[in-house]
Amino acid sequence: MNINSVNIVEDTFLEKGYSCWLQYNKITDSKLIEEYLPYCLSLSFTEDSPIVRSAVEELADGVKSMLDKEPTIYNYFSNDASIILGTYESINLSDYELSSDLFEKLNDESYVLKSVNKEGNNKILLVGKSDKGILYGAYHLLRLIQTRKSVNSLDLVESPRNQIRIINQWDNMDGSVERGYSGNSIFYDNNQFTNDLYRIKDYARLLASVGINAISINNVNVWEIETNLITSKFLPEVQKVADIFRSYGIQTLLSINYASPIEIGNLTTADPLDEGVQQWWAEKVKEIYSYIPDFGGFVVKADSEHRPGPFSYDRDHAEGANVLAKALQPYNGIVVWRCFVYNCLQDWRDRTTDRARAAYDNFKPLDGKFLDNVILQVKNGPMDFQVKEPVSPLFGAMEKTNQMMEFQVAQEYTGQQKDLCYLVPQWKEYFDFDTHAKGEGSTVKTIVDGSMYNYRYSGVAAVSNIGNDINWTGNTLAQANFYGYGRLIWDPELGAEEIAEEWVQSTFGNDPLVVETIKGMLLDSWNIYENYTAPLGVGWMINPSHHYGPNVDGYEYDVWGTYHFSDRDGVGVDRTVETGTGYTNQYFSPNAEIYNSLENCPDEFLLFYHHVPYTHQLKSGETVIQYIYNTHFKGVEQVKDLIDRWNKLDGKIDDYRFNNVAERLQLQLKNAVEWRDKINTYYFRKSGISDDQNRTIY
Amino acid sequence: MNINSVNIVEDTFLEKGYSCWLQYNKITDSKLIEEYLPYCLSLSFTEDSPIVRSAVEELADGVKSMLDKEPTIYNYFSNDASIILGTYESINLSDYELSSDLFEKLNDESYVLKSVNKEGNNKILLVGKSDKGILYGAYHLLRLIQTRKSVNSLDLVESPRNQIRIINQWDNMDGSVERGYSGNSIFYDNNQFTNDLYRIKDYARLLASVGINAISINNVNVWEIETNLITSKFLPEVQKVADIFRSYGIQTLLSINYASPIEIGNLTTADPLDEGVQQWWAEKVKEIYSYIPDFGGFVVKADSEHRPGPFSYDRDHAEGANVLAKALQPYNGIVVWRCFVYNCLQDWRDRTTDRARAAYDNFKPLDGKFLDNVILQVKNGPMDFQVKEPVSPLFGAMEKTNQMMEFQVAQEYTGQQKDLCYLVPQWKEYFDFDTHAKGEGSTVKTIVDGSMYNYRYSGVAAVSNIGNDINWTGNTLAQANFYGYGRLIWDPELGAEEIAEEWVQSTFGNDPLVVETIKGMLLDSWNIYENYTAPLGVGWMINPSHHYGPNVDGYEYDVWGTYHFSDRDGVGVDRTVETGTGYTNQYFSPNAEIYNSLENCPDEFLLFYHHVPYTHQLKSGETVIQYIYNTHFKGVEQVKDLIDRWNKLDGKIDDYRFNNVAERLQLQLKNAVEWRDKINTYYFRKSGISDDQNRTIY
Repeated sequence: MNINSVNIVEDTFLEKGYSCWLQYNKITDSKLIEEYLPYCLSLSFTEDSPIVRSAVEELADGVKSMLDKEPTIYNYFSNDASIILGTYESINLSDYELSSDLFEKLNDESYVLKSVNKEGNNKILLVGKSDKGILYGAYHLLRLIQTRKSVNSLDLVESPRNQIRIINQWDNMDGSVERGYSGNSIFYDNNQFTNDLYRIKDYARLLASVGINAISINNVNVWEIETNLITSKFLPEVQKVADIFRSYGIQTLLSINYASPIEIGNLTTADPLDEGVQQWWAEKVKEIYSYIPDFGGFVVKADSEHRPGPFSYDRDHAEGANVLAKALQPYNGIVVWRCFVYNCLQDWRDRTTDRARAAYDNFKPLDGKFLDNVILQVKNGPMDFQVKEPVSPLFGAMEKTNQMMEFQVAQEYTGQQKDLCYLVPQWKEYFDFDTHAKGEGSTVKTIVDGSMYNYRYSGVAAVSNIGNDINWTGNTLAQANFYGYGRLIWDPELGAEEIAEEWVQSTFGNDPLVVETIKGMLLDSWNIYENYTAPLGVGWMINPSHHYGPNVDGYEYDVWGTYHFSDRDGVGVDRTVETGTGYTNQYFSPNAEIYNSLENCPDEFLLFYHHVPYTHQLKSGETVIQYIYNTHFKGVEQVKDLIDRWNKLDGKIDDYRFNNVAERLQLQLKNAVEWRDKINTYYFRKSGISDDQNRTIY
Repeated sequence: MNINSVNIVEDTFLEKGYSCWLQYNKITDSKLIEEYLPYCLSLSFTEDSPIVRSAVEELADGVKSMLDKEPTIYNYFSNDASIILGTYESINLSDYELSSDLFEKLNDESYVLKSVNKEGNNKILLVGKSDKGILYGAYHLLRLIQTRKSVNSLDLVESPRNQIRIINQWDNMDGSVERGYSGNSIFYDNNQFTNDLYRIKDYARLLASVGINAISINNVNVWEIETNLITSKFLPEVQKVADIFRSYGIQTLLSINYASPIEIGNLTTADPLDEGVQQWWAEKVKEIYSYIPDFGGFVVKADSEHRPGPFSYDRDHAEGANVLAKALQPYNGIVVWRCFVYNCLQDWRDRTTDRARAAYDNFKPLDGKFLDNVILQVKNGPMDFQVKEPVSPLFGAMEKTNQMMEFQVAQEYTGQQKDLCYLVPQWKEYFDFDTHAKGEGSTVKTIVDGSMYNYRYSGVAAVSNIGNDINWTGNTLAQANFYGYGRLIWDPELGAEEIAEEWVQSTFGNDPLVVETIKGMLLDSWNIYENYTAPLGVGWMINPSHHYGPNVDGYEYDVWGTYHFSDRDGVGVDRTVETGTGYTNQYFSPNAEIYNSLENCPDEFLLFYHHVPYTHQLKSGETVIQYIYNTHFKGVEQVKDLIDRWNKLDGKIDDYRFNNVAERLQLQLKNAVEWRDKINTYYFRKSGISDDQNRTIY
């Protein structure tokens, strides 16, 4: 890691924060050295490319750092080498009992890792379907060593399950990051590119190490200055960044302003059916590809939260997206069209309008109307990245339209990287949700990986949680979400615990107390955060604008469509067919009926679907009001327990990272106390019902 | 008025907005011309000074404008002149049946206006105790003509009742105005003085015309750049401004940063008992007076809302103020020390702390400890300029300490110059309030005019409502508050209606429909605003920070000490001695007992003093909840009625001012509807009690 790039004095402790899970700590256990060293004496690569060079560099650096041995490198095939890297076409597969048939069936990013122990000669063979596979395999091998796995009998074939694995930066060129909780942008400052290419390279390494293969480098809200990213003013700079990412197998995309033809094209309209507009986009795309031949395409937030879009011209979203798709088609570029479209000027008095319905209502009727290089990017839930929110009913509902999942690694609503909230378990719930779109087993993961409907393009996107803080993510433990996002979307079958363990070992080493403690904290954290915040799936109850801390009525009488309708008798949003907004009907059967039924609706989403009296009995036997009290008292105690658990690691973790987390946990405790007291007081004042344990409510 | 100074094209309509109540419209009624003209043919002044020159210029301009006659001006005594101006020492009083005994008893700002009709020779004699009296008399005479009063038999003696009549600008040097609702500062822009001296001169004319004699020209929150106003960097600019104000009888003051010795003096402390600090202030004051020989003194917000103050050094406010007072004493300068001191980091859980108590608790124990050139500036109520708030119990409580009233002409909590709210009736209520400090009749006005306790210094301050909008006040009708503030503190016996009538006539002319309509709108407006906002004296319920529009719980769980404690059963703050915060006991008997008693407490302050059930019956017979519903429905209807009334004036008022008010009234209606619906819904949800007229509640 080139920590000098961030202008700090050299400091091993800071560097530990900066290096994330690519620590490559020196191995001191002689038995392990004895096993690993023979495999790491030399490296031979049989095909050359910038991506292969990245893999070789990473392996060489990792080996040197962990085993104190600089491997010999052959830039040709050498049978003397202990690690042999190549594409399946550049290696004599039969020498290693492999056949090209295997590779023909794999996708471009796949690889084989195989230990070969012939005649006492220890070797590891890393064969990629392409150079990207080699890079991913290299990181895999390093992960195995960092997590102290044996490499004596490797024989594995790996393919990423999702085709597009993208991260969305919400970075603005003034250096700010929308919903950023870890400093400013690593890309921009003062309306220019930072050109801190070292840091961008290190970001590319981190991304590639967990299998991310695409990045959009500017905020989906494209303001005035950023509108110019697709002009000659900034394209040479974009090119430099794209060159770095390319050498780590990562395609670069840009978020665009839908009104670009007007703003920078001197046209009087951005109407997608206007011939001048079509022509303008075609020429614009041509220009972009002249700088970046493998440019990924556009990410578009249109007609959403006051951003311009096709609605201005009475065109629908398909017409809106297709003009861009057509321009990108000749270059294999794609349009990532966001479905976060809803009325953000809702009248709170109007109980018939339901923001949860909006994405489905807007997009479902357009199924089949989009060109096949358009992908709809759908947020995991129908609202907006709440701590607990049902899956979006749009998943599975559009057989003929490419779809992509959008997660939020940035913890906008889940503690803002002050509070601990490991999100992999949440993402897994979404992936594993059975939509019943094509009968039982129609899980979300089989929709977004493209297999269910044979989408041409599919995959997963997420809002990045990194910034220019030394440790990238503000809270060091929030690195686990970055790591976990990449790992999980590579292989949705991985367990949340398995990922956590990998991450802790790679990040903090292999001391069992450290591993078990941090893993446990991570795995408990989502539930803890939920306990002390908005109850039973109702969401929100946060301070407006910045979205941190409790404010029960903060959005209750506002325009954003995010209400809980608490009154003296009860709480919750009636989304049933009979008496509510009918949202439940957007799901396939039997989900629709389950959610619609007060009796069958899972308690975790009770207040999302139903307005119930405070005395309503949950399946646990608790009343809703007592559940609110219990979880909020419990949540604070759980945070105190997190602090105790972390404190036990004092001395086992470098000071910088130990203190960083310790400080954040204190902030979390303060936040949890505020939530507990405000939520409990609010509901005690409204319901008049006392806590059955007579704990303090104000 | 020199409207060119504000860089707009010449436009009579805009000029009408800009000219406020100094319209000097041409008189067309021949009978009136016949009466006024003979008195206005020529002007003689017997003593010269910049202030006398201002008076003569204003009279000459006014006469020329109204009567189309440029009066001859004699800069010496001339018996031929129809208006004779002079101080009582420069005029042969006995010629006009006046004696100097009369003037000896009057204060420096007094004047006599007398019609003299000797031998068919019509004259008006204007004799001032000093040149300031002459200036005030000149504006008086012009007011008489503008309001079409006869001048044939003038024989009046006028003295201002309050000694210090100051306006506080909350202007920052970046050009912003804290709590400003009419554009930016007329004094500053981009961290410099604007040097738009024409506009400042016109502001001085407006101020002098209503008798204001002092101004502090920067925000009481003194930020980094403004801390330098008392340095050679800015004093030459302050001097220019002070020169203008001086020629209109207005003293200039500055708000200072209590930490100045540290910030600009390179000292390590601002401890008032430190000799170095005392020395520093002495030298600083000397420097200021070298620029501005009649500098008024300092306005100080210390230990208030995070501003520095003596508490940092464990000193009390008397020690804090006296260091400044001692420095100013040799120059007759004063220290205006604000009493807006409270815990602004209160824990909402803590029901024993009561912000309303704070000013009294902080300052009452210090009575007699302040030097006699310190004046405590006390906000009218104990909280903060709410639409309805009891009088501060500090008035009358400090016999041995100069006190000054602070009003807020800027409509921070009363509609922000979008909504109409004529505040003179409110101010009169405060003035007329009987504190019983020295038995019955101990009204606030006799405290702040200094007569009750023979204060050396006393008077009234107010936060200005002007900015660089063409019409100064955003809403043209808000000019009435600026006007009314000056007129009322000159003579607290003037009626709110009388002042309104004067203002409408001077501002919009004498059409009876116009006069009666606008006067009626003004007089109804405070009650209307109260109707649709926070009920029964409880205050707040506004959006945090900007303070416009409803947000019932906006401050309920916050640190500011501004709560209403609404629950499912009732609402209000218990400030009684027996079960509450004991605040009621800060008043003299019998006010203390009246407020403390649920039975005797006036309904208008019911929720300020008591927490009552929604079903509590008011003296009107209505329940509290029904009162809330009734007033909120009514308030909206009343705003609609204001709109109807205003619309009847279409064609009778120039377009600029007509449309300006019409637009604001639409904003007011929108605001009133929001208040009605949010307050009613909030209380319906909490109380579960239906409106007895079944009107729509959401």
